[in-house]
Formats: sequence, C-alpha cells, structure tokens
Amino acid sequence: MTNPRVVRAREAMATRGIDRLLLSVGPDMPYLIGYEAMALERLTMLIVDHENDPVLVIPELETPRVEPGSVDIIPWGEVDDPIDLVVARCKPGETIALGDHTWARFVLALQDRVEAEWVPSSPVMTELRIRKDPEELDLLRSAAQAADQVADRLATLTFSGMSERQLSRWIDDAVVEEGSDAPGFSLVASGPNGASPHHDSGDRVMEPGDVVVCDFGGLVGGYPADTTRTFVIGEPGAEQTGVHALVLSAVEAATAAVGPGVAAEEIDGIARTVITEGGFGEYFIHRTGHGIGREGHEEPYIVEGNDTPLEPTMCFSIEPGIYLPDRFGVRIEDIVTVTDDGVEVFNTSDRSLRIVG
Amino acid sequence: MTNPRVVRAREAMATRGIDRLLLSVGPDMPYLIGYEAMALERLTMLIVDHENDPVLVIPELETPRVEPGSVDIIPWGEVDDPIDLVVARCKPGETIALGDHTWARFVLALQDRVEAEWVPSSPVMTELRIRKDPEELDLLRSAAQAADQVADRLATLTFSGMSERQLSRWIDDAVVEEGSDAPGFSLVASGPNGASPHHDSGDRVMEPGDVVVCDFGGLVGGYPADTTRTFVIGEPGAEQTGVHALVLSAVEAATAAVGPGVAAEEIDGIARTVITEGGFGEYFIHRTGHGIGREGHEEPYIVEGNDTPLEPTMCFSIEPGIYLPDRFGVRIEDIVTVTDDGVEVFNTSDRSLRIVG
Repeated sequence: MTNPRVVRAREAMATRGIDRLLLSVGPDMPYLIGYEAMALERLTMLIVDHENDPVLVIPELETPRVEPGSVDIIPWGEVDDPIDLVVARCKPGETIALGDHTWARFVLALQDRVEAEWVPSSPVMTELRIRKDPEELDLLRSAAQAADQVADRLATLTFSGMSERQLSRWIDDAVVEEGSDAPGFSLVASGPNGASPHHDSGDRVMEPGDVVVCDFGGLVGGYPADTTRTFVIGEPGAEQTGVHALVLSAVEAATAAVGPGVAAEEIDGIARTVITEGGFGEYFIHRTGHGIGREGHEEPYIVEGNDTPLEPTMCFSIEPGIYLPDRFGVRIEDIVTVTDDGVEVFNTSDRSLRIVG
Repeated sequence: MTNPRVVRAREAMATRGIDRLLLSVGPDMPYLIGYEAMALERLTMLIVDHENDPVLVIPELETPRVEPGSVDIIPWGEVDDPIDLVVARCKPGETIALGDHTWARFVLALQDRVEAEWVPSSPVMTELRIRKDPEELDLLRSAAQAADQVADRLATLTFSGMSERQLSRWIDDAVVEEGSDAPGFSLVASGPNGASPHHDSGDRVMEPGDVVVCDFGGLVGGYPADTTRTFVIGEPGAEQTGVHALVLSAVEAATAAVGPGVAAEEIDGIARTVITEGGFGEYFIHRTGHGIGREGHEEPYIVEGNDTPLEPTMCFSIEPGIYLPDRFGVRIEDIVTVTDDGVEVFNTSDRSLRIVG
C-alpha cells in the first residue's frame, strides 16, 4: 500500500488509538482513495485498518465506477446484506471511527452487530484535510477563477424581470461554461430575501431598487468554489452604499490579518469589530467563515471560540454580511489561503457594489 | 397540534414503543413539516414526542427559511452547541428513533450524552410514507410529465458530437423548462459506458453506432421524476434492436402484473424471467425497481426477498436493464402506482429504441 494519504490516516489513527476507520458517503472517502460513494440506500463503505490493504464494500452495479486497481473491492449483490460484509472485517472490542456523514441507519445497524467503541472520524480526517497539498490548492484556485469569471459576467446582465431561480440557473450554467466540471450551488437572494443568509432562490422577480446577494460556485476536480458578490438594480441609495462599504471594510480588515499563527477566532473578531463599530453588529448574524476543501464547509471554522492557529495552506472563506430583516442584505465572500508570510486571496473579481439593470 | 402526519407518526411510534423521534437531513422532516434541513455541518433537528408540540432546533441564520407558524423553533447561535438543545429534551432510558440520514457525527454526539435505546426511524416513517396521498400522487405525476416532455424532445436532438456531460446539462435545463421546480439528476451513459448502470456522465463524445441510456428526472414540490429511455445514434444493429425489444417486453410484463396484493418480489421475478428466458439473465444485474416519493429511492423495493404485498397508492419504478460489459447497455424505466384494480403508469413517453442523429 503506497497511497500516502492512507499512510497518513493510519498514523493519525494510531495516535488516537483507533483500530479501524469505516467511511461511507461524504468527503473523506474521495479524499483518501479518489472514489465518491453515491448518496443512496445501497451501502458503500471503505474499511481502513493497520494490517490490511483498504477494501471497499460496494454495490455490484456500481463497481464500474471505481477506477480499476485504485482499491480492492468487495462487491455485494442485490440480495446480499452489505452490513454482513463490513461486520465480518471488524473485531469485538475495537475502537472504530465512523465517517462523519455515514447515515444513521448504517451506524445503528453496525452498532447492533459489533461490540466496539464507536468514535467519529473527524479528528483523524481533519488532521489530514485541514492543510492542503499543492494539487488541492490548484483545484481550489481553478474553481475560484471560474466563479470569478461568472461574477464579472453577472455585472453585465439585466437582473430586473428575472426570477431568483432563473438567475440561479443562469449561474449554474455559467460556472460550467467558465471551466467548472459541474455546478455546485447558487444562491440568489433579492430585496428582502437578502436578509436570509441561506435563502433558497425562489420565484421572486427582481426589480429596480433591489439589492441582490449572489453566492455560488462550481466544482473542479471535486473541489468547490464559494464566492459572494452583491449587486444593486439601478442607482443605490445611501444606506445600501454605506452598508456595502462597511461589509467591504470588514472583508479587507479580516483578510489583511490572515497569517500563520493567528487564531481562527481572531479573524472573526476583526471582521466583527469593523461591523460593530459601524453600528451594524447585531445584523452580522453568522461566523466570518468556514474552511473549504474536499467539503464545502470544513475546518477551520472562522468563529468565536476556535483558537486553532492558522497554518500555511489552510483554506477558508471570509464572508461577513449585514442582514436587515424585511429590507435587504449584503455579503461579500472570498476564499483565501494562508501562506508562509500572510495570505493569498483566490477570488479576484470586483468586490464593489456593482450596478446592474 | 393538528398536523395529520405528525398524528400518524405518533401512532406509529406508539405501536413500536418509541418515545421520541429525532429527524435531521433527509426526506422525513420535509414529509412531516414541510421544512427541509440543509445538508451542512450546522445541525437542524426536529423533535417529536407524545406530549409536546414538535420543535425544530435550527441554526439561527436559517430561521428565515422556515414558514412562519409551521413549527415551533429553537434557534441556536454560532457559538451555541445544538446538541445541548436536543439533549435537554431527551430523557434517560427512552427509546429514541433517529432519522435514517442523520450524520454519524450527530448520532455519536447524542449517544455520548443520552443513555437511551437508539433505533432507526425507518419502520415508523416507512409506514407513513409508503402509501401516497392524492397530493403526493399529483406531484409525482407532474414530475413524470415534465420528464416525459424531455424524453420526447431528446429524440429530436443530434447526440453525435456531444459529450455525455453536455447532454446531461441539456437535460437538466430541459426538465426545468418543461415545468420542474429544479433539476434532479441526469445520467447519460453512451456506448460501452451504458454497461455501467450508475455511470457518471463524463467527457466521452458520442458517435454513430452508440446506444445511449438517458436516466433522469427533475423535482416538483420536492417529489422526483425518474425515467429512463434508450436511444441509438443512427440505424441500430440487430443485437441492439433485439436487446432493447427484450427489455421492453420485461417492462411490459412486469407492469401488467402490478396490482393490489401482489408481492413486490413477484414483479421482480416476472421481469427477470422474461430477460432470462431471452438469454440475457446474467446481464440484468440489479433489482427491477425502487419505491419513489419524497425520496428518490425508498420502500417498496422491487427485489427478490421483499414479500411486501403491493397496496393502492404505492409508487415505484419498473426499470429492467441489460448491461453488456465493454459494449453497451439498455434500460427502460417508468414510474407506476398501484390502483384499486391494477396499475397506473405515470411515464407515457415513447419507449421504443429511438433513432437520433
């Protein structure tokens, strides 16, 4: 077994007294072996221990999806019980780490059949995933670049008369046209909907005077972009301009503070102080950012209480926002990475309040 | 509390000695209260017991996504621990059912903090969801209708020269144009890739002589379409025609057999017998179908070993296929529902081997 990520996973397991790692849906499996399980009711499970080569228990009909030679597979047929195949490889009394996104139905079925100490995989997998290798940094850069092209194209569109959902579909198509392998997500929150940070793009038709938050990104090689720019339909009012400028100041101050050794929560505190001193602290209702990599949201979280010191190659979002209920919202989001002596910002599209039709 | 689905859930819980239901991501929560949790690291959890109105523990920033008055909410802020809020409402010694898709990280965190008997929610929720009400049937019909329009439009396209991924994107756009709220999935498997039932649409460029399996469907009101039609680029060869005709015979025989009281596995057996007697049994490598509703794959599974008797309003796919490794595949898929005296087929687009450019 020469897969270096598996070697590192075993080292991290050993440090924590973990005998076995069972991974299913979610980012850990593709991170380790390049194969992503389908999020369906047929169990796919990667088994990693200290003695044997990793094996992948997989529905027989999905075996053609696995790159030949990339991992040993144990296919199961439609009338087999995949839990049997996993249980047969576990030993009573072991400490077994379960992939964070594994479905409860499989967790409970395994617990029912194996007397073990069950722990989450996240400490092991976060240790591996929180720092990125050069290939991962390139994928995140490429994904950001495609999203930035879309952000700049957005500024040339006429939003007025389009529904949020239509614009969201346009963005999904555009990120693929600009080089993403697949659309990831696209949130369009217009007018009062902008005050909902996780608004679902809906049927609201945009109109002059709307501030419009567009938060989106496609995937490149399994790695996501995630950027937010805020637009206004027609000339902005003074408050819209002022709120946007304040959020932009918070982004700039937080970004400038990024560097090795700085605690994640310090970055949050800096963005929050700018917005609070500007008089809008109570309307900045979420953390400043989240790590990004094989998973759209991962460690390090840029939030009060997280004293993790930033290290080179960690990647995360800086995305302060101000949300005025029933009125409008503004958010600006970049993905950044920590360098040896500071920060590299992956997103370079225009951050100003862009005026659209 | 007058939500009739919650009333039924409590009845099903009582029958099984379940004190509390904890639902998170996945189909059960939207089925019960119309709200769908975001599949992110911030926990959203619906708590249903026998004494209190259901409550929804939800990230504060996502509270605007909940329809006001639809459920009591307990928002948590960015520095709160949502597990605390759930644990405070559980009692030691209870039997607690966990939503099937709940992430392992939350399952383990809850188990760590509450001494309870933990069981899966599926027996309770399947009992509710396996039979559809008229509104659900209408949503599934509408989703199928949009997909059927797309299937018929596909027959007018020139596949040759397009990549699978391009055609997949075209399908996603088309299902929305034809009335779906959102694209669901679209699998395009051409030439030898067609032999992989769950192929990921990729960069392969289609060319004359290819058989192309298109399996897709958008969402209407949260309910999916799921239909498969098989196309051929240029005049088909004799084997292509013969294999397609055999799969179509299997679909027709299985569909004709659907009715109340028939066991799910009988439908599978009928499709399998047709294909086996036609000499291709070993190449029909999956079950005949899966239930469909709020979730794309759910009970009843149309598979050997499932003796569940079909009942009116159950909905499922009939989708036999033949997969010839390294050569081509054929699958034909309809969604059907059991009626009082037989079957209604939701998908009505042309099932023949359509010749495209």
